[in-house]
Amino acid sequence: MSRNRHITAPTGFLAAGVACGIKESGLNDMAIVACQKDATAAIVTTSNQIIGAPITWCRQILPRGYGKVRAMVINSGNSNVCTGKAGMKDAQAMASHAAEMLGTQSQKILVASTGIIGHRLPMTNVRAGITGAAGKLTAGKDSLANQAIMTTDTVEKFACEKFKLGSGEITIGGMVKGAGMIAPSMATMIAVITTDAAITPAAAHKALSAAVGTTFNAVTIDSDTSTSDIVALLAGGAAGNKTITAGSASYKTFTAKLAKLCESLARQMASDGEGAHKLVSITVKGARNDAEAEIAAKSVANSPLVKCAVHGADPNWGRIVMAVGKSAAKVVQDKLAVKIGGVSVFSRGMGRAFNEKQVSKHLAGKDVLIECNLGLGAGKFTALTCDLSAEYVSINADYHT
Amino acid sequence: MSRNRHITAPTGFLAAGVACGIKESGLNDMAIVACQKDATAAIVTTSNQIIGAPITWCRQILPRGYGKVRAMVINSGNSNVCTGKAGMKDAQAMASHAAEMLGTQSQKILVASTGIIGHRLPMTNVRAGITGAAGKLTAGKDSLANQAIMTTDTVEKFACEKFKLGSGEITIGGMVKGAGMIAPSMATMIAVITTDAAITPAAAHKALSAAVGTTFNAVTIDSDTSTSDIVALLAGGAAGNKTITAGSASYKTFTAKLAKLCESLARQMASDGEGAHKLVSITVKGARNDAEAEIAAKSVANSPLVKCAVHGADPNWGRIVMAVGKSAAKVVQDKLAVKIGGVSVFSRGMGRAFNEKQVSKHLAGKDVLIECNLGLGAGKFTALTCDLSAEYVSINADYHT
Repeated sequence: MSRNRHITAPTGFLAAGVACGIKESGLNDMAIVACQKDATAAIVTTSNQIIGAPITWCRQILPRGYGKVRAMVINSGNSNVCTGKAGMKDAQAMASHAAEMLGTQSQKILVASTGIIGHRLPMTNVRAGITGAAGKLTAGKDSLANQAIMTTDTVEKFACEKFKLGSGEITIGGMVKGAGMIAPSMATMIAVITTDAAITPAAAHKALSAAVGTTFNAVTIDSDTSTSDIVALLAGGAAGNKTITAGSASYKTFTAKLAKLCESLARQMASDGEGAHKLVSITVKGARNDAEAEIAAKSVANSPLVKCAVHGADPNWGRIVMAVGKSAAKVVQDKLAVKIGGVSVFSRGMGRAFNEKQVSKHLAGKDVLIECNLGLGAGKFTALTCDLSAEYVSINADYHT
Repeated sequence: MSRNRHITAPTGFLAAGVACGIKESGLNDMAIVACQKDATAAIVTTSNQIIGAPITWCRQILPRGYGKVRAMVINSGNSNVCTGKAGMKDAQAMASHAAEMLGTQSQKILVASTGIIGHRLPMTNVRAGITGAAGKLTAGKDSLANQAIMTTDTVEKFACEKFKLGSGEITIGGMVKGAGMIAPSMATMIAVITTDAAITPAAAHKALSAAVGTTFNAVTIDSDTSTSDIVALLAGGAAGNKTITAGSASYKTFTAKLAKLCESLARQMASDGEGAHKLVSITVKGARNDAEAEIAAKSVANSPLVKCAVHGADPNWGRIVMAVGKSAAKVVQDKLAVKIGGVSVFSRGMGRAFNEKQVSKHLAGKDVLIECNLGLGAGKFTALTCDLSAEYVSINADYHT
């Protein structure tokens, strides 16, 4: 896998990224990812009740969350959110202009936008960008498209999976943008995943929903939820495999590989939180059920106090215990056990004697592991986040218990 | 009201604060607030499932949340949380030593501790502190007690209310510590409120619970909940009024004045968040009910994105709209209206044309008002928070939409 071969790694996909002047910086801001014929498509979109026009458009053309599309067009620099009826027309215009360029109908074009809220898109630039990108569609220059969807991201984030399925070989590629710790306007997440697998639309949607639940939805950077989040899966079918249907053996294989790819993208996203210095994985096990494990894990992942302690490499287990205890998940003080980097730091209601230097060293690394065992059942969930850095934090990080 | 006349402003109360070496800084760290005879007492304690030994002690002596006590002893510098059975014995020992000094039983002594988690209290110092404070109990040196309960607080926070009730005059005084934006170990809130009113224990508890719900519980600094939060009301009865019972006319007057005092303390607390430069009041109205208004208001108050925008005096209403929309309260995009400092910035699904300089000037002030009307009902709630400051925030605050 290279940065130029992920979304176009599956046979039948082309991509392009150009600069059309939406971003003042002059960097790439318009991307198209296209299939050479209509692809099976599935989308998962934000749970926020306030949504951007592009999300409304995508839900209109895929009312059940799946169907057939030809391409996805994405701009950065302006999110086209809270722009009223005019903004809705702009999103439609993006779709119809891209459709015209690609020789299809606007109902076959997914649209995504990320950037400032509340400003009309500069449509002259947008149209020029779509025309330019459509003319440059190719396989093997994926980095240009990846750059065109970035806002406060500091690195390109992409992944690729290849695997045998029956007699054929399947490729899944993906790229993602977001989520800055605190993005300039919103920590929008946009993920585009392509595959040459043949799969029914309903099976694609089921597989995507399952994969997203334990990967992208496990990431919490600052507890805020964007009005524009979207994950789209486009399946072109060029691999020639027997069409995957929900519940089949091949469905299970495909979903597992899709989840693996999503996990890689999610981890890259958490690592690239604005100001982040490390990836923090919080596993809660022993909860009464998976749902309560998720609630407790996210409570820890969203705690500013915990994230500051991690940044300062301070083995301050009190904050972890506090964050678990304040959650809506059932917690019993004397049954709770906490490990940091595999080292037991708290159990039976008290801190344990442990090697503080060893735990501090783990916390000072790039990949921090926190594990909480609630001791109440078999429920399990792993949440992903990053540390809280910079001087805002220094009043805490410098204070070592 | 002076800084030396709040908790001892009501007739019959004495207080003292001394330094006994729990804090390395050498500042005051042990306080006693005592009534000259047994007082009606009511407490409201943390909702966190992990609780400190002092909270356990207070719940043991007041299992219904109310009863009779003589005094409250409070130390700072060590929270006596997650210290196991030994910690529980320490809390009991604090109560019994204070009881001995004051000539009462340990069951008549409320205990509170704030500071580091997971360390045993230095009991030799604690005992000396209690002895010292008990010997210095007086009326009119409340500042010494106030200082003794502070951790990362930068100012003393206190309030006093005097009012007529029937033929008598009632005084209510109070002091509070917390909640640092991100306290070294935990943003514990401890409030002590005294009054010379005669009131039944049950009525005192009902009044306190009602007052706390819309004041202290409306404050959210960093969404974390301490293991040690406690608000205690001690009513000595020296005013000689006809004993207040729940539901009476005098109960309503008393509760309103108590709520006013609690609101003052809560606002002082939010203003003193660590690194805070301003007090931010978020009023949500038009919700389907008060509970949903509270959910939506706290979603905005807890949003790092909103708090960064406020710090940067950036009229970024998109973040407010996002934070309302992500909450569990029912929100309809086209019915939502947002005002900042009284100026309409968003309605009918779109940003309004408004004077950005005027709104920025309001946001640059010390007292920021955000109002969201959901347009769905009569539910209303006001949450209090502070801005997010320092360089951590600069990547956002410097980015002006």
